[in-house]
Amino acid sequence: MYCFNNDYSEGAHPKILEAIQNASLDQHAGYSMDRHTEHAKELIKKAICREDVDIHMLIGGTQTNMTVISAALRPHQAVISAETGHINVHETGAVESTGHKVLTQYAADGKLTPSLIQKTLDGHTDEHMVQPKMVYISDTTEIGTQYTLSELEALSRFCRQNGLYLFLDGARLGAALTSSVNDLTLADIARLADVFYIGGTKNGALFGEALVIVHPDLKADLRFLIKQKGAMLAKGFLLGIQFEELFQDGLFFMLASHANAMASILKNAFTDCGFPFFSDSATNQQFPILPNDLIARLRESYQFQDQQAVDEDHTAVRFVTSWATSKEAVQQFAEDLKRLAHQ
Amino acid sequence: MYCFNNDYSEGAHPKILEAIQNASLDQHAGYSMDRHTEHAKELIKKAICREDVDIHMLIGGTQTNMTVISAALRPHQAVISAETGHINVHETGAVESTGHKVLTQYAADGKLTPSLIQKTLDGHTDEHMVQPKMVYISDTTEIGTQYTLSELEALSRFCRQNGLYLFLDGARLGAALTSSVNDLTLADIARLADVFYIGGTKNGALFGEALVIVHPDLKADLRFLIKQKGAMLAKGFLLGIQFEELFQDGLFFMLASHANAMASILKNAFTDCGFPFFSDSATNQQFPILPNDLIARLRESYQFQDQQAVDEDHTAVRFVTSWATSKEAVQQFAEDLKRLAHQ
Amino acid sequence: MYCFNNDYSEGAHPKILEAIQNASLDQHAGYSMDRHTEHAKELIKKAICREDVDIHMLIGGTQTNMTVISAALRPHQAVISAETGHINVHETGAVESTGHKVLTQYAADGKLTPSLIQKTLDGHTDEHMVQPKMVYISDTTEIGTQYTLSELEALSRFCRQNGLYLFLDGARLGAALTSSVNDLTLADIARLADVFYIGGTKNGALFGEALVIVHPDLKADLRFLIKQKGAMLAKGFLLGIQFEELFQDGLFFMLASHANAMASILKNAFTDCGFPFFSDSATNQQFPILPNDLIARLRESYQFQDQQAVDEDHTAVRFVTSWATSKEAVQQFAEDLKRLAHQ
Amino acid sequence: MYCFNNDYSEGAHPKILEAIQNASLDQHAGYSMDRHTEHAKELIKKAICREDVDIHMLIGGTQTNMTVISAALRPHQAVISAETGHINVHETGAVESTGHKVLTQYAADGKLTPSLIQKTLDGHTDEHMVQPKMVYISDTTEIGTQYTLSELEALSRFCRQNGLYLFLDGARLGAALTSSVNDLTLADIARLADVFYIGGTKNGALFGEALVIVHPDLKADLRFLIKQKGAMLAKGFLLGIQFEELFQDGLFFMLASHANAMASILKNAFTDCGFPFFSDSATNQQFPILPNDLIARLRESYQFQDQQAVDEDHTAVRFVTSWATSKEAVQQFAEDLKRLAHQ
Repeated sequence: MYCFNNDYSEGAHPKILEAIQNASLDQHAGYSMDRHTEHAKELIKKAICREDVDIHMLIGGTQTNMTVISAALRPHQAVISAETGHINVHETGAVESTGHKVLTQYAADGKLTPSLIQKTLDGHTDEHMVQPKMVYISDTTEIGTQYTLSELEALSRFCRQNGLYLFLDGARLGAALTSSVNDLTLADIARLADVFYIGGTKNGALFGEALVIVHPDLKADLRFLIKQKGAMLAKGFLLGIQFEELFQDGLFFMLASHANAMASILKNAFTDCGFPFFSDSATNQQFPILPNDLIARLRESYQFQDQQAVDEDHTAVRFVTSWATSKEAVQQFAEDLKRLAHQ
Repeated sequence: MYCFNNDYSEGAHPKILEAIQNASLDQHAGYSMDRHTEHAKELIKKAICREDVDIHMLIGGTQTNMTVISAALRPHQAVISAETGHINVHETGAVESTGHKVLTQYAADGKLTPSLIQKTLDGHTDEHMVQPKMVYISDTTEIGTQYTLSELEALSRFCRQNGLYLFLDGARLGAALTSSVNDLTLADIARLADVFYIGGTKNGALFGEALVIVHPDLKADLRFLIKQKGAMLAKGFLLGIQFEELFQDGLFFMLASHANAMASILKNAFTDCGFPFFSDSATNQQFPILPNDLIARLRESYQFQDQQAVDEDHTAVRFVTSWATSKEAVQQFAEDLKRLAHQ
Repeated sequence: MYCFNNDYSEGAHPKILEAIQNASLDQHAGYSMDRHTEHAKELIKKAICREDVDIHMLIGGTQTNMTVISAALRPHQAVISAETGHINVHETGAVESTGHKVLTQYAADGKLTPSLIQKTLDGHTDEHMVQPKMVYISDTTEIGTQYTLSELEALSRFCRQNGLYLFLDGARLGAALTSSVNDLTLADIARLADVFYIGGTKNGALFGEALVIVHPDLKADLRFLIKQKGAMLAKGFLLGIQFEELFQDGLFFMLASHANAMASILKNAFTDCGFPFFSDSATNQQFPILPNDLIARLRESYQFQDQQAVDEDHTAVRFVTSWATSKEAVQQFAEDLKRLAHQ
Repeated sequence: MYCFNNDYSEGAHPKILEAIQNASLDQHAGYSMDRHTEHAKELIKKAICREDVDIHMLIGGTQTNMTVISAALRPHQAVISAETGHINVHETGAVESTGHKVLTQYAADGKLTPSLIQKTLDGHTDEHMVQPKMVYISDTTEIGTQYTLSELEALSRFCRQNGLYLFLDGARLGAALTSSVNDLTLADIARLADVFYIGGTKNGALFGEALVIVHPDLKADLRFLIKQKGAMLAKGFLLGIQFEELFQDGLFFMLASHANAMASILKNAFTDCGFPFFSDSATNQQFPILPNDLIARLRESYQFQDQQAVDEDHTAVRFVTSWATSKEAVQQFAEDLKRLAHQ
């Protein structure tokens, strides 16, 4: 039974495990004050072409989102998200648990635009309503789509004109930056977003998200907030070691690139069989719309998740590849699909 | 420069790293729904001699404390802690950030007693004050002391008579259970506490705390709370694998025992030199009271933390050993101490 | 300039002011432990035909909503509301500030139905999402509509089958119960809702909402919660005195009835002029859709609020009458409207 | 049975009730946007000799404290209070419910000093602990004592040097400013505190606290916070009318002065009988230490509260007078006391 459920089914790339093993018996400063973390931060600064940022390494996405948002907002302020945004749906109300409303707009492709945000601003005009202050986007989005440079520039300009912080959740940023349709760089993101993170968990690390704070107003006292939210790892050097490996020789991009390549084999297989897609993704998540009886047959050999019922007989499903997905597995799947689809 | 700052300076015991490596390329179910975690839970149930408990594995202590306390209390309820309690001092207000007051009592040895708790109850009598509902203790305490069986029985009885949940923070439970003066077992704790955890971070794991929920009222929906607090690890199988190793062949006890043994060499050295102690610890944290000029000379070769100034010329300091502390290191320290103390 | 902005422009009915004055120099127990409050509770229990409820008197709607919802829910639980619900739009995120998500469904008439609630339940299936636990409705709704007996019975049945608390915000309950199309009684509401309140602020009192808790699970420790949320009035006897007056000789119903009668004069005037309505209201809020140029002319003599732009030339506006609105004022308005509409 | 339990047993001064009655049938703008409130703010600005402040009127003390503190602090920041501080003891954890820790120091006379605050600062040095950012004092204190000009100047200077906001809870500020030992003015307070409030509830109003924000950093968006905390009164003009009356012709000071005068009659009676006091109060709260059997006999005719047991046979009790306490009542009490004390 092969599993396409997600990109965090496997442990970590061998280089990362080896680095952890090599450093395991050394004595390290606690709570991310160690030299590996320091070095990893230098590598990331180089990769994003900026020195004037603060970098912190947290364990997972939900805690990073909740920490950043609650650190940035005053109690009456809210964050704007696409309806499908991870913070709105899949974090068990973590943002609200810190006291803040998530204001949403429906976006068919999972991407916010200036005009969608403007609609929210238009509806929030006085002190009887929350005050929108931050925009949350993810790249890639929860449905595998991604922002273009011009889209991100437009968002960034709009946010700056309207006094909104722009926060980019990059849990799957590797997949976005290495996709065939990408025209963004890490440096662009560091220039256009006020705060963002680079995901390790879904790209070959055991865990870890590297948070980059660009806007000076968002930097103060962040270590207090990280500690309070339970997000400060005692053995923080484990995060440093992992990001050192990821950003030392381009491993971060190689792993994401591999996941995308594996997904494109799946995508081609679905396309060849004539199946439409729920979203237009060039990244490691694919959302084909399949007949329910085919889904049932595929599930005899493969695990994958339902996204959403489309009609009585068809469902959009989600296939996710990872840094560890083998070419054999996706080729086998492609063959099985073709065979089963034509029965 | 050898570091006695804490028990989380090193990575993890080689067996644990090896187990992670061996399982790294397997596909695992996400979010602690995997088979390693299932197996680790079975091993822990055996070790605590109870089947009727819920077990969850979280990453660190602060997030475990905050999750348990906020899950157990209604908004107007409070938790009682010793003044020195970790939740009161060293978690940057994590408990308060979830809306709950920490009520404190001073205890010279860091341990709560029924009479101290009664003082808090006496002062909280109506709806203009918070309602005490949970008692938080740690074993070992923040100053290395530990509860005896009869002390824990008395606390447990008192809590049950007064409708208070008893929560035991076991971040250093290994050290307590393997100390020379211990008369408690894991089974005692599971019988006497309503909820407790078994610390991995400070006892040879990369990270991880195994939370055991005994009281039926505290079990409901805990996975929702864990997720909301950002404490649900995507690759939860990493926690399962580590606790499998710790509880497979007694590794958990062996590692703690080693740390205690190394600390007792330090303790003997301080005693031999005639130095008194800030607290009476038989565990891996030692708090000698040293002359400030000796402290300065020791710091040329060793790292350790200040606990508290005692008078103008003396300071209580903290030495911590770990599963990885070598006999050579502590023996060398003992020699250096004797030499410097007699200069 | 006559003001139709809302139903809280004026002070209180003379009988209420007189009662406050008469009792002003007496000494009363503080914090709603006084005899007037006790008596008012008895009167309300008679009016709702139930003895087995807890009644508390709070100052305003937002604080009542926030207190009830945060008292009822555990941290991971959410409340379901219509998109237009007061808690979702006009309370500056008060519910979220206590940690809870408001889940919404669009309802053209502002009323929730079992099938709308089912849609929310269908989308919240595991611990990665919040857990819906309470349904919030208001009667009348924010757009002047109201629930029928059969609608409320259906909602109540559905909530009980699905383990959801049903909470009815009755800030304008007087208007609902005295409208020409009403078939509900206070006793019905006490039978069908788990918790509700009877609004005084918008029906002739200086301030005050009488909260009725029916479901036993929602009763515990509510005074702690009221105090914590800053909602416990030191001179709570002022609330008791006001509700005594409102429920002594049917004043509550007379005042609401008057407001509705005044609104129906406005409604007829709009209808006579051929203007459509944004919502079908038989209560003291009317939402005619008027041409923008007529709105501008009306605003030379009257105050009223915009509800929502309908097209480039038309806007739905809101007219609200109160217990204090005079027949002369609405008749004058009717004449002015007819004159201006035909220019 | 005469009641000395507190200073909020009676309604409001007749002038205030009359003013409410006179304005009751007028139409007022909602939510404190009315002209009475505007005028009251002007009167208060004159009384404090400053124009550059923001003034808001809230209903009660707990909600004012919670609103100010949660508006001023970031999530990891804490407020420092005397152990006896109202926010620490008698608000059911309202401050903690907004996420903030209250850090306390013991002060025998209920007053904070620079050296007590310094002790708290010394213990909070890094991101593992909360960050002290605000100092909360009350004048008069909960035990009837009051700050002198030089004490307040010292506190103010210390707070400014250490980047701490100074917040003065003036629920009983009238009593402080009119006591026989007072050397402070409203203008001093507005110069020395960053934010403070002038209590109406305990000084002749039905309810109401006038919040004065001096420090520019604390002004932004306060109406959002007030609304979110349920502290924005729909009929806010009731607050404006009351403070108009209080500050029109010195009524505020006359009422407080009367309460103090009545208390001094009680104080003299206790002193004449040779009873010591728990605290040195020249204001409307007196805390004599009485024999328990005398207390029992007094309670046959008078209500008053226990403060704290002093030894087995003596208890400190609290007598409170108000703007409405009659000379006859206190003289009768003085006679009764003398008679009973000498039996």
